[in-house]
Amino acid sequence: MSARIPAGLIETLTLLQEGITDAHACLDACHDRIAAREPQVGAWQWLCPRDACHRWLDDNADWLTGTPLRGLPVAIKDIIDTADMPTTMGSGLYANRQPVDDAACVAALRAAGALIMGKTVTTEFAYFSPGKTANPRDLRCTPGGSSSGSAAAVADGMVPVALGSQTAASVIRPAAYCGIMGYVATRGLMSLRGVQPLAQSHDSLGVLGRNFEDIRLIADILAGPGTLQSTAEPLRGLHIMRIQGAAIGAVSADMEAAIDDVAAQLREAGATVTHLADEGRIKRLVDLHGAVMAFEAARNLAAEGTRPDALSPQFAGLLETGRAITLADYAAAQAEIAQLGQWLDVARTGSAAILAPAAPGSAPEGHAATGAPHMSRPWQALGLPVVSWPAGTDAQGRPLGAQLIGQRWHDGNLLGMGREITLLNL
Amino acid sequence: MSARIPAGLIETLTLLQEGITDAHACLDACHDRIAAREPQVGAWQWLCPRDACHRWLDDNADWLTGTPLRGLPVAIKDIIDTADMPTTMGSGLYANRQPVDDAACVAALRAAGALIMGKTVTTEFAYFSPGKTANPRDLRCTPGGSSSGSAAAVADGMVPVALGSQTAASVIRPAAYCGIMGYVATRGLMSLRGVQPLAQSHDSLGVLGRNFEDIRLIADILAGPGTLQSTAEPLRGLHIMRIQGAAIGAVSADMEAAIDDVAAQLREAGATVTHLADEGRIKRLVDLHGAVMAFEAARNLAAEGTRPDALSPQFAGLLETGRAITLADYAAAQAEIAQLGQWLDVARTGSAAILAPAAPGSAPEGHAATGAPHMSRPWQALGLPVVSWPAGTDAQGRPLGAQLIGQRWHDGNLLGMGREITLLNL
Repeated sequence: MSARIPAGLIETLTLLQEGITDAHACLDACHDRIAAREPQVGAWQWLCPRDACHRWLDDNADWLTGTPLRGLPVAIKDIIDTADMPTTMGSGLYANRQPVDDAACVAALRAAGALIMGKTVTTEFAYFSPGKTANPRDLRCTPGGSSSGSAAAVADGMVPVALGSQTAASVIRPAAYCGIMGYVATRGLMSLRGVQPLAQSHDSLGVLGRNFEDIRLIADILAGPGTLQSTAEPLRGLHIMRIQGAAIGAVSADMEAAIDDVAAQLREAGATVTHLADEGRIKRLVDLHGAVMAFEAARNLAAEGTRPDALSPQFAGLLETGRAITLADYAAAQAEIAQLGQWLDVARTGSAAILAPAAPGSAPEGHAATGAPHMSRPWQALGLPVVSWPAGTDAQGRPLGAQLIGQRWHDGNLLGMGREITLLNL
Repeated sequence: MSARIPAGLIETLTLLQEGITDAHACLDACHDRIAAREPQVGAWQWLCPRDACHRWLDDNADWLTGTPLRGLPVAIKDIIDTADMPTTMGSGLYANRQPVDDAACVAALRAAGALIMGKTVTTEFAYFSPGKTANPRDLRCTPGGSSSGSAAAVADGMVPVALGSQTAASVIRPAAYCGIMGYVATRGLMSLRGVQPLAQSHDSLGVLGRNFEDIRLIADILAGPGTLQSTAEPLRGLHIMRIQGAAIGAVSADMEAAIDDVAAQLREAGATVTHLADEGRIKRLVDLHGAVMAFEAARNLAAEGTRPDALSPQFAGLLETGRAITLADYAAAQAEIAQLGQWLDVARTGSAAILAPAAPGSAPEGHAATGAPHMSRPWQALGLPVVSWPAGTDAQGRPLGAQLIGQRWHDGNLLGMGREITLLNL
């Protein structure tokens, strides 16, 4: 990474406090990086021009001094409405769509003094059909999706943090593929007002960053000041349950070995790591998640579904699959997910989190697809909070990611654990 | 009701089929009624001009012939986004707000050939602070809220059906107060894309109409063609459980007597009606519902909450209450609601629906408030489908409403039961 990459949010705020830097310099560092790398990376759907950003910082200088973010930049996934920038949802049907409102999460960030830098590329309607983004760690590879641009922009140092959203694997997979930190909030914890829905039973807001202190800062703003509890979560004495990737689906040997290493690190740090015996239940959640997502997407995007010519074959296929699912089958899937959630609540009693691979392996080569989502589907079906972080690289030097699945509503604890674990690697 | 009131949707469609009337005549009947009564009733936030409506019918005449609704009019609660009409959410903050998209439910109605007549008055952000609407059955009384304008317009014969939404009691209470039929869908069954949220754990879409055949027609369009099963639900042999209004909260003697009469009617029709022994659990749901709603509203409308001067005292108070609720208390409320839902699933095993008062009594006099919501809160907390219908009047001739609470996802059966029950009164 070049020296021109801006520091993280917390680090920059400290420098601001000490008068060593200012928001203009941070903005310039971001814009310099974007100017140098955007042609190859393609992270941005819409970028606020440098001059306009500087002017906004000047016009709001006094007010910003008293805000938590003091004019530092944040990027927004292009599935999230912004009143002053287009929101295309990655679809040609909405190439010029200009919402009239900010999403609640964008409004909260603005009120906290964020400079909204621009909109990052999403796959089509936050499903699987990719946009123009490449993986900054290896441009031949997919960045993952659907929060492709958010992950790539953060990983490449174009912006310190970015908002994403996850319905299947849309935050954790791109975070893992691009070698950064990811966080998915407990479903329902953060307002989705103005976040365009894919499947209401699975949609959650997320944050991508280069460290968990920055992510925590943003999470506190999104959840509402003082809502999340706990910051430090010492690993000594924690009980972590591990599930093998193979219990969820296909996984590379590299990846299983990386999670072995994480488990060893956790034990060295004083945590207990035990095996979660699931007897096929987690794999079952992968299928149930897919059925619920298709059913709901077909209804949320019924109007778009009448124009299959304007959709990718993948997305048209999702809607077609969803239309073919009966209400009885959908209801049965929802009931089974609820039962499996109750089973897991009991099975994980006394443990702080579940450790699993964040993706089936490192980022696949090619830009026609965004990789397989199964490692995230079970937790997303249950609406649980998740953090992920880089856990080494494979033989080709591509990042591998690990994830911890927390307890519902205990996002503060989970972010604290993520912080402690990533500190082990320093 | 005057002879100029248009017939219901199904009835009009039959007349259309026979060439006895056309969509223009139906539209004129609606507009005539509105011209005569709107000054007193105040149901409309925005009304599509008569000329523009006729022009739209002419321009789309060929296409409309092949659609389910054939150009018949539907009204939309003003919390639901429309791309060609303002959507104010009943707030002065959004007096000129013009969304760029139709909500998914509006798009589905348009695709089915509905003429979107206009936007009906909602209370402020679909909470309690009333708009300009009076109760057409007694203009001195509240129409109930928050779907005030939808209920009043349908009850007064200004439009055959209208969309509403319910977070606490926002469809069932106004339907009861205005003497019409109401339906709240199982939470999650119908897309809320473009329906402005108040509290995501409680928000559901609803329909108000003058008979259940019309409501079923609209529900089929909203849920997606072929999604809902069952139309007729013979009452003979059904098991209905009854809960006393007093087990939920304050209720008038008139109202309890009206529900006694409904129970007697059901028994005469061959149904079994037994008592639901809840030992205070349903009343507990009233409180839990309120806490969850306040917590979520404070986050969904955090930006508006920074401008209490621009809000009603009621709404500012809701947001303040919500900000004071800790995440731990919110999480505990959610967990308790889930447990009570499981208890009810067991307690009602083998029964088709639960019978309860739709409101604490008839519509109160005055226009400064919309009446008490407690009779709906328990079911809304559980996300269950509900139908309500007029069950007699009180001593002053004001409508009293009964409600049936169905099984989750079995909205088709519930609408069938509603139809059979209302046929008993004919």
